Amino acid sequence: MEAEIIAVGTEILLGEIVNTNASFVAKQLATLGITSHFQQVVGDNGERLDDAISLAQSRSDLVILIGGLGPTPDDLTKQVLSAHIGKPLVVNFKAIDKLIKWGKQQQRELTDNNRIQAMLPLDATPLDNEIGLAVGAMTEAFDTQFVLLPGPPKEMEPMVINQLVPRLLDLQADHQILVSRVLRFYGIGESALVTELADVIDGQDNPTIASYVKDYEVTLRLTARADSDEAALALLAPMEETIMGRVGEYFYGYGDHNSLAQTVVEALKSKAMTITAAESLTAGAFQAALGDVAGVSAVFNGGFVTYAEATKAKFLGINQVELAEHGVVSEFTAKAMATGALNAANATLAISFTGVAGPEELEGQPAGTVWIGVAHSTGVSAQVFHFPGSRQDVRYRAVKQGLFMALRAIQAH
Amino acid sequence: MEAEIIAVGTEILLGEIVNTNASFVAKQLATLGITSHFQQVVGDNGERLDDAISLAQSRSDLVILIGGLGPTPDDLTKQVLSAHIGKPLVVNFKAIDKLIKWGKQQQRELTDNNRIQAMLPLDATPLDNEIGLAVGAMTEAFDTQFVLLPGPPKEMEPMVINQLVPRLLDLQADHQILVSRVLRFYGIGESALVTELADVIDGQDNPTIASYVKDYEVTLRLTARADSDEAALALLAPMEETIMGRVGEYFYGYGDHNSLAQTVVEALKSKAMTITAAESLTAGAFQAALGDVAGVSAVFNGGFVTYAEATKAKFLGINQVELAEHGVVSEFTAKAMATGALNAANATLAISFTGVAGPEELEGQPAGTVWIGVAHSTGVSAQVFHFPGSRQDVRYRAVKQGLFMALRAIQAH
Repeated sequence: MEAEIIAVGTEILLGEIVNTNASFVAKQLATLGITSHFQQVVGDNGERLDDAISLAQSRSDLVILIGGLGPTPDDLTKQVLSAHIGKPLVVNFKAIDKLIKWGKQQQRELTDNNRIQAMLPLDATPLDNEIGLAVGAMTEAFDTQFVLLPGPPKEMEPMVINQLVPRLLDLQADHQILVSRVLRFYGIGESALVTELADVIDGQDNPTIASYVKDYEVTLRLTARADSDEAALALLAPMEETIMGRVGEYFYGYGDHNSLAQTVVEALKSKAMTITAAESLTAGAFQAALGDVAGVSAVFNGGFVTYAEATKAKFLGINQVELAEHGVVSEFTAKAMATGALNAANATLAISFTGVAGPEELEGQPAGTVWIGVAHSTGVSAQVFHFPGSRQDVRYRAVKQGLFMALRAIQAH
Repeated sequence: MEAEIIAVGTEILLGEIVNTNASFVAKQLATLGITSHFQQVVGDNGERLDDAISLAQSRSDLVILIGGLGPTPDDLTKQVLSAHIGKPLVVNFKAIDKLIKWGKQQQRELTDNNRIQAMLPLDATPLDNEIGLAVGAMTEAFDTQFVLLPGPPKEMEPMVINQLVPRLLDLQADHQILVSRVLRFYGIGESALVTELADVIDGQDNPTIASYVKDYEVTLRLTARADSDEAALALLAPMEETIMGRVGEYFYGYGDHNSLAQTVVEALKSKAMTITAAESLTAGAFQAALGDVAGVSAVFNGGFVTYAEATKAKFLGINQVELAEHGVVSEFTAKAMATGALNAANATLAISFTGVAGPEELEGQPAGTVWIGVAHSTGVSAQVFHFPGSRQDVRYRAVKQGLFMALRAIQAH
């Protein structure tokens, strides 16, 4: 099967957004063993989009259109494809239900543009949108499979993984199945990880290995192709063993829908522990990450954002003289913050963050210098890090590092 | 002039690298007022690359080829273009000198592939490579300007800025410029905003108007084309006035590199006010958003994450009996949290968040129900919202709403 991706959006042609969608989908196609010799980008213009579709159809048998399913007048992809293949748009009931619920919940009138988001070419297979309102679609015409995907990555990516990939597998002659195992790592860069595993990756065929970087984490997706789950798992096991033998120290969990924060919350639950935090440069981002996890209330009662020196002293009961003596960017302060938070919030584990987010230096220490403290009834410790990158990079890397240290601390108790 | 970018590289088709080069060059073209209606990606294959060039030449008068100028056998772009336009490759002396020096330095034999890096189509204008060895080129054939750029961004980007852009400016007949103004809105959806402005958008020509959604905000980019900044601004002013007349109540600031949090921090500075927060469902995300802004320490000393009911009482000094009476998802609690935080952190403005992030309901109230409180020495108020979407959506919309309410409160004092 020969695939072609058409990314639709004037903002791509203007260079206002980078076409990451094409690379995400391309990677999935490669994993499926579907070749692709061309990609196109076209703007929000019906005529030119139609030309792009005709061209793709003339040389590919799987045409994947990404973007232009939104509620604005310049979102035309669905309408243009419908006209191109001569299949009128009809309402998808599941999608319109969802849209109506959304309208009610938000107490907002639905526009006609909204309604188009819930429509599909006649007889098309809907691809449910787990996150947003625009339903995707897959439909055949002129011996070509056409796929409609939404532009926002957080809607498009799960639709591809959960809805499109299984259907593409069915289209393939051998009807084999794909079984993936996703391994999540923190504390090692992608290039370092890939170097560690160079021979495994070079030799890859079945299972395949793909690495992804997101939010300072590296994810490896191992995908085996076989006639049965058992056969696929048998192919995956030895490769996973090799990988864990090399980089297991950085491994923290499995699965697409996992995160360091989620792993931390689950670990806390399993040990019946509770967590709190005292955050300076991260300013609440660590606790907000925990808050992303449903059910966190079982292990998290609250904590502190202590940005100013005076606030560190007041909220956490730290001796202001000693604080001034050691400075806020210090092992003393990191430990005192963690211990202070542990007591003030009466939790079993406390993480503290103090350092220099930047861009300016602080107390003569360069941006990126971050002390992270870990307090537990059994004692307190702190470690210093020098994170590269922007103010945001420094703060969010600190959060990830804090989550990783929390996880190891929980596992140690 | 109509431009078309062709990115060359099988690694793009495999999703192994993201096509950031196309967006970089596209942005430069847009700034120059050069329109582009298509982009292509093609692999390292001579025949298909030649097809891509023919297609681009048939519909564009500026064809920019990126990638495939390297020393490996699969780098074919220069050779394929040379054959396509019937101009043999000849050595560029400056480039071959550089190459020979490099070879000596590395004490390395130059391969034939190396030498091709220093060659250009006959009569082509060389585009010097400040960083690497592959010389770029610009050449005309079939009334089309062809440009050859190297793939590595660190080589391509300076070549574009310093070598290509000046030459493209010379090619333009009118020598017009583009001036953009970016208007940022919160509290109105893209579809609603676009509906409000339907006639303005439909009538767009010069200035053009484009809408984008990100992080629950809507951004409008107005772009005028004229002979001078003054003339462009004169074109932008009336359109902006019309827009502000219709949806000004949702406007919060200008510019690409702006955010609600940044606008709040600047407003606080200008009024010499300080802010704090008591966060339940948002769990620190509001304060973390403030922390994203460099220099926030001037207006933010710290605050509280009060997730559990007991923590709300303890940290913020709220009467536990009354708290239990009214429930945590209530106007009372939102007001009490804001007032408690204002006093405990000794700030001039306090924002509080309490509600149901979901997925489960709480106190019989559905997910998405959020009370946001605003406390100031002059008084306290609270508003309830019903946010749609996932747990994350609810929490981050609440943060945005809190920032917007903070901004309006600051502006009112």
